[in-house]
Amino acid sequence: MAQQNTSSAGRLRPNNRKPLILNAAVMNTPSHVSPGLWRHPTNHSAEYTNLKYWTDLAQRLDDANFHTLFITDSLGSFDVYKGPHNAGPAIESGAQFPINDPLLLVPSMAAATTNLVFGVTASVTYDHPYSLARRFSTLDHLTNGRVAWNVVTSFLTSAARNHGLEEQIEHDERYRRADEFLDVTYKLWEGSWRDDAVTKNIQSGQYANSDLVQEIHHRGKYFKVPGPHVCEPSPQRTPFIFQAGSSKAGKDFAAKHAEAVFVGSQLPELVRPTVDAIKSTAQEKYGRDPNHIKVVVSISVIVAETDEAATRKRDELLSYGNIEGALTLFGGWTGIDMSKYSDDEDFRFVNDYAIRSVLDKWSSTVPGSENLPWSKKRIAEYIMLGGYGAKVTGSPETVVNELERWIEIGGVDGFNFGSITVPGTFDDLIKFVLPVLKERGWLRADIEKDKEGATAREVFLGTPRLTEDHPGHRYTWARDGDRPVFPSNTE
Amino acid sequence: MAQQNTSSAGRLRPNNRKPLILNAAVMNTPSHVSPGLWRHPTNHSAEYTNLKYWTDLAQRLDDANFHTLFITDSLGSFDVYKGPHNAGPAIESGAQFPINDPLLLVPSMAAATTNLVFGVTASVTYDHPYSLARRFSTLDHLTNGRVAWNVVTSFLTSAARNHGLEEQIEHDERYRRADEFLDVTYKLWEGSWRDDAVTKNIQSGQYANSDLVQEIHHRGKYFKVPGPHVCEPSPQRTPFIFQAGSSKAGKDFAAKHAEAVFVGSQLPELVRPTVDAIKSTAQEKYGRDPNHIKVVVSISVIVAETDEAATRKRDELLSYGNIEGALTLFGGWTGIDMSKYSDDEDFRFVNDYAIRSVLDKWSSTVPGSENLPWSKKRIAEYIMLGGYGAKVTGSPETVVNELERWIEIGGVDGFNFGSITVPGTFDDLIKFVLPVLKERGWLRADIEKDKEGATAREVFLGTPRLTEDHPGHRYTWARDGDRPVFPSNTE
Repeated sequence: MAQQNTSSAGRLRPNNRKPLILNAAVMNTPSHVSPGLWRHPTNHSAEYTNLKYWTDLAQRLDDANFHTLFITDSLGSFDVYKGPHNAGPAIESGAQFPINDPLLLVPSMAAATTNLVFGVTASVTYDHPYSLARRFSTLDHLTNGRVAWNVVTSFLTSAARNHGLEEQIEHDERYRRADEFLDVTYKLWEGSWRDDAVTKNIQSGQYANSDLVQEIHHRGKYFKVPGPHVCEPSPQRTPFIFQAGSSKAGKDFAAKHAEAVFVGSQLPELVRPTVDAIKSTAQEKYGRDPNHIKVVVSISVIVAETDEAATRKRDELLSYGNIEGALTLFGGWTGIDMSKYSDDEDFRFVNDYAIRSVLDKWSSTVPGSENLPWSKKRIAEYIMLGGYGAKVTGSPETVVNELERWIEIGGVDGFNFGSITVPGTFDDLIKFVLPVLKERGWLRADIEKDKEGATAREVFLGTPRLTEDHPGHRYTWARDGDRPVFPSNTE
Repeated sequence: MAQQNTSSAGRLRPNNRKPLILNAAVMNTPSHVSPGLWRHPTNHSAEYTNLKYWTDLAQRLDDANFHTLFITDSLGSFDVYKGPHNAGPAIESGAQFPINDPLLLVPSMAAATTNLVFGVTASVTYDHPYSLARRFSTLDHLTNGRVAWNVVTSFLTSAARNHGLEEQIEHDERYRRADEFLDVTYKLWEGSWRDDAVTKNIQSGQYANSDLVQEIHHRGKYFKVPGPHVCEPSPQRTPFIFQAGSSKAGKDFAAKHAEAVFVGSQLPELVRPTVDAIKSTAQEKYGRDPNHIKVVVSISVIVAETDEAATRKRDELLSYGNIEGALTLFGGWTGIDMSKYSDDEDFRFVNDYAIRSVLDKWSSTVPGSENLPWSKKRIAEYIMLGGYGAKVTGSPETVVNELERWIEIGGVDGFNFGSITVPGTFDDLIKFVLPVLKERGWLRADIEKDKEGATAREVFLGTPRLTEDHPGHRYTWARDGDRPVFPSNTE
């Protein structure tokens, strides 16, 4: 399996390695993917309602030269397990519930840091593009451009019901609506104000030149927004766009809109086709340079001085786990209510293809583990150590060797490190993994004083504004460019 | 006119005066009510996109023992002047445009201060109660309860059009919808989680007791929200409620829901009936203790060492004004497009009752001024010095005498000081007015160390939670109280 891919972008040439993207993933809730672990001594996640918990975390990551603090979100409860519509197990375990608004954390964390980028999840399904565009423009101003938007369409029925719908909008329809949503926001962000519209002319008293601000006249299938955008141009205009769709419609959406995509998989060999498909769709269907889409894989790391110590650490972490909470997450992600099965069920043999196919994937991560029974407990423990995605436990060298497999074989540009404990997981990465990555030439150089405070897009793509091949760019109204034209109706 | 009202609450007994409420009013925009003044040397409002501008302002007000920083908001442009649907004059002058989201400023300002309360305007007309409840619960957590919500229903057609409507929802219908909106949020904030639902049980791993969290099953005319609330109990549960309705429906809404109301008028004699009407409606129609509604009047102060110096300061401020911007605000507030009139029109004699009645009120503030012509320029200058509301220019003694008239005759509990320049206006208040207020016994005492960081409701009403007579209180689920019952349908 150790196939080498040295040709592509010269990834394995020492001293000339493309620096990895290092993201830290968290959620504004007591337990992101590790229910019960809020009790662990290295976990302060139950202090999520306290602003200082967040600014301390941001400073720690900024000092360690992480690229991004990533805050995922959810708008309802995981209510499939022991359901339907039963939030009880989520409430008991604190599994992604309760959950506070992530956007409100960002300005304070930005003020407490110099370079860290803040990636924030916001759903397009229950919001309006005119309002959300204002929120992100405000964040882009207050953070001096250090903000990224993770576009999601929300998958929880409980979120739909609490927003007044009887059931969710159909999956692909959600993505069609999302596509128009982004089109509206691009028009507002890129094309409503010319770059130099704000004049602040002390003599004449003119704040902005109204000839350089225009309405967008959007009349689509889902939205009518005449404009103009209510915010003046912010550093990035369009916030840097993250996306994580894994369905066919989601991948197509990512290929069109994303400037960075999250992918998830158990093995680098399995993720490579997804990476290649997104990049080739971007190139062939949407005419984009595939290098303008950074690929970040979610991975959960348990690391200690030696492989043995790491295994002991894993067991110690698991001793704090809440199995019911983990099965609650499993229910929300898969739609499968595990309470219908007995505790001694071996799920390798259940008459449910969906379960078996998930477990087959999970088994593939540990050679030989196909022969181990999958009990509820083992399923729960798998989730507690980093959710659905890739995992590695071991010494610094073991971990970095595995990360390199993801780079070489998976073709990813970096990692979205999950948090089993906060800040414990990140402290371990900083202490054990980053030094080895540095030694092997994978870390970005320390940021020079005069390059501090770069915008998110500069950090990821080296430019402050949407690249020319991005679908939002056709609306960009540059100082020396033409006034963008908006199709009057996008239906 | 100097009628005394010494009996009510013993307001004029020296050394036993009820401390005034001191609010500072601003907006997340270059020009709140004083277009053109962003150029004044004491005005930093054009730095509104910079977080430090806000934390500096908050610290200054906190140090001076102000009660509240109040951030008003607007969701569209003032587009009546030279309209219809013409945002041009607002863009040129920066008159409440552009305008950024106010909520995102609050956590950083709270972290930078100890006692200051943050009152934030949020409209219920284009938002959903489930989402807005989460945003305010998050703010209440992050500020440790130092947040107040100014409930508005939005009055700008441009806001309606940008949210996909052809025209605004009819005025009284907006208030009926707002009434149900608040009912939903009370259920979520007060009744979905029992006070002690979060157990954080280290032994069992229970984060919260699901028996103490319930759905709200709201099915009304406008909203369907099953719940439960997605946030755990915050310090105040329901944020302290401000309201500023001046219409019949708005005053009725205030009498029912508000814990503090903003009133606006030119003269204390004119505001008194409004204050009395709100309090008596609260008492008679809604069974509330009228003392549980604090009344704050908007006022704009220009103060200097002497009356003459203050007049000179006023003229100097006006020399920075932007007349077009002020007429833009006038158009948005009144619906009247002044561009249809010539520059030398004397508006005392125009054939438009709406204009004449506004100007009659304005004239009443300065005895004898009825005989001065109202030109466009004079109308604009009136607005630039504090908008529609009350104004006073003079020495510290002149100003405080006038403030005392508002307390005695108007029956108000305090002031919402408008900002002509920021922080200039507040610096002047701190330097000139507060010492005289202190001398006369009107200021609250310095806050003792052990009473620092009180919640908004403790500051205004002396209690952290909704009082028993408030309509939200019937949903309150206290540790030792009954489980609240929700009517299954509020239609």
